Amino acid sequence: MYSAENLLQSFNEALEYENFSREPRELYEPINYILELGGKRIRPIMLLMTVDMYGGDIKKAMPAALGLEIFHNFSLVHDDIMDRAPLRRGKPTVHNKWNANTAILSGDTMLVKAYEQFLKLPEPLIKPALEVFNLTATGVCEGQQYDMNFEARTDVSIAEYLEMIRLKTAVLIGAAFRLGSLIAGASTEDQQLLYDFGINTGLLFQLRDDLLDTYGDSGIFGKKLYGDIAANKKTYLYLKAIERTSGEDRIRLKGFYTDPSIDHEVKIKEVLRYFEEAEVKRLTEEKIAEYYSLARKSFVALGVTDEKKAPLRIYTEKMMGRSF
Amino acid sequence: MYSAENLLQSFNEALEYENFSREPRELYEPINYILELGGKRIRPIMLLMTVDMYGGDIKKAMPAALGLEIFHNFSLVHDDIMDRAPLRRGKPTVHNKWNANTAILSGDTMLVKAYEQFLKLPEPLIKPALEVFNLTATGVCEGQQYDMNFEARTDVSIAEYLEMIRLKTAVLIGAAFRLGSLIAGASTEDQQLLYDFGINTGLLFQLRDDLLDTYGDSGIFGKKLYGDIAANKKTYLYLKAIERTSGEDRIRLKGFYTDPSIDHEVKIKEVLRYFEEAEVKRLTEEKIAEYYSLARKSFVALGVTDEKKAPLRIYTEKMMGRSF
Repeated sequence: MYSAENLLQSFNEALEYENFSREPRELYEPINYILELGGKRIRPIMLLMTVDMYGGDIKKAMPAALGLEIFHNFSLVHDDIMDRAPLRRGKPTVHNKWNANTAILSGDTMLVKAYEQFLKLPEPLIKPALEVFNLTATGVCEGQQYDMNFEARTDVSIAEYLEMIRLKTAVLIGAAFRLGSLIAGASTEDQQLLYDFGINTGLLFQLRDDLLDTYGDSGIFGKKLYGDIAANKKTYLYLKAIERTSGEDRIRLKGFYTDPSIDHEVKIKEVLRYFEEAEVKRLTEEKIAEYYSLARKSFVALGVTDEKKAPLRIYTEKMMGRSF
Repeated sequence: MYSAENLLQSFNEALEYENFSREPRELYEPINYILELGGKRIRPIMLLMTVDMYGGDIKKAMPAALGLEIFHNFSLVHDDIMDRAPLRRGKPTVHNKWNANTAILSGDTMLVKAYEQFLKLPEPLIKPALEVFNLTATGVCEGQQYDMNFEARTDVSIAEYLEMIRLKTAVLIGAAFRLGSLIAGASTEDQQLLYDFGINTGLLFQLRDDLLDTYGDSGIFGKKLYGDIAANKKTYLYLKAIERTSGEDRIRLKGFYTDPSIDHEVKIKEVLRYFEEAEVKRLTEEKIAEYYSLARKSFVALGVTDEKKAPLRIYTEKMMGRSF
């Protein structure tokens, strides 16, 4: 069986081999740029590890891994335009380095290139794999729309937030596991269990991200703390705090998120005070534990030996900061 | 055999049945809006007529017709953002009616929905049909990039322009015919002949569009004349005039296209004078005749009786203003 490092290397070689250095270069240069910015390649590695867990052929599955990663990067390029993000992985975003038109059109081309990959799968797998992929792509677009809607709304519920992150983040993790198991010929039960495993680890991952932005160790976490509060992001923490405050307090907490004239330091201090009163740290940890428990249940039920499961378990644990 | 009117009605019913009225409505409303703006549905009708010409099943081919039309409208939505176009078919463009973010994301979703349609074809057709579609989609993106590049360049050659319109416009017409013949099970010779027929009619169509913008009868043509000159569009006419002038004249003609301080009436008058001197009307007509002759040659060579060919011939003649 392959290690995550092996698979990362094989994946990066396969990506290199794709070579998007074509004409017109104004269209293809940004594609190479974003794909070469790297990232952890979590989704393709999860897909390939799943294939390997069932004794499937890594090489045969590679186009699906490439398709998923190209799609993920397409969604980053377009989301960054919509969110006016200046940086991605510490480097200028495509629309920032070039311009919005380039980012739109190069992104569109990446989406087409993602689909192209799936046609390289063995023929009987093309239709079922593309069905998974279409549902995933639709979900990611819907999730991004909800995310944008929520920016303008002041009445977002916890349930709506969880549905948004399920679509925007978790379905792509679910798709990685489902595609891997589909391509390796796993049973439909295992395919469903792995999909559920992916959804729950995806949700867990996003909530953990929310939590660490406020309560992480900035040295380990590698990002500055309180970015979400500074950007008025309606995270699980904020929505939980809103849910658990009322009257004047709720109005004041919402005020910190809508009044741009409030001093940054004051805002952080006051919001943290509300978070503490509402016990959002504990409550978020509990929700993470709930998703963890669901994910673990699916993982345990897979019709695969513990030995075969080990690499995927270890990799997912490392990525999610949890033991499965 | 079906008439164009029959096929248009069937197509519109099938499109209606698709019903994109889903949540989040901010994502799907613009999709319904652009698809309901209508347009002549040239590409799906050409596809369905081709199927019918070979005695194929219209119903079986309908998803490909839908996929092609949804793709075409996706490309309009994104192109309109890039071109900052305020109107499309006389109505506000999506980014104008909503905003650029909505137009980006609804467009992305349309591209996914276009792919979804192809999975509804009979299974053995999915891979070959998607191969045609991927090449087409890539071509359209490349064509749009060249078009944008040309706006900033002052040294565009005729050959480059023709390659741009081949990619941006003609490959989608070619794809309509190729997909129709593929789905109906036509011979590979006929598939290639029809693709060539589509490419040449597509090129002819674009050059005719260029010609009519300057030399059309505005009453019949339905648009104001000289829109391309006003917008400094590097059409076949302009590029031919540049090719056939030199020295001071060429510099002056380029000046009319780059100096925004020049009075509109003066600009039109002077550019028309150069066009006349360079005989661009006659030369464009000759180029159109050349494409017409190539298209006709392919059409005549098809392994189908004249009787079977008649509806497609009549429809294409009507759309292209030429007899085949």
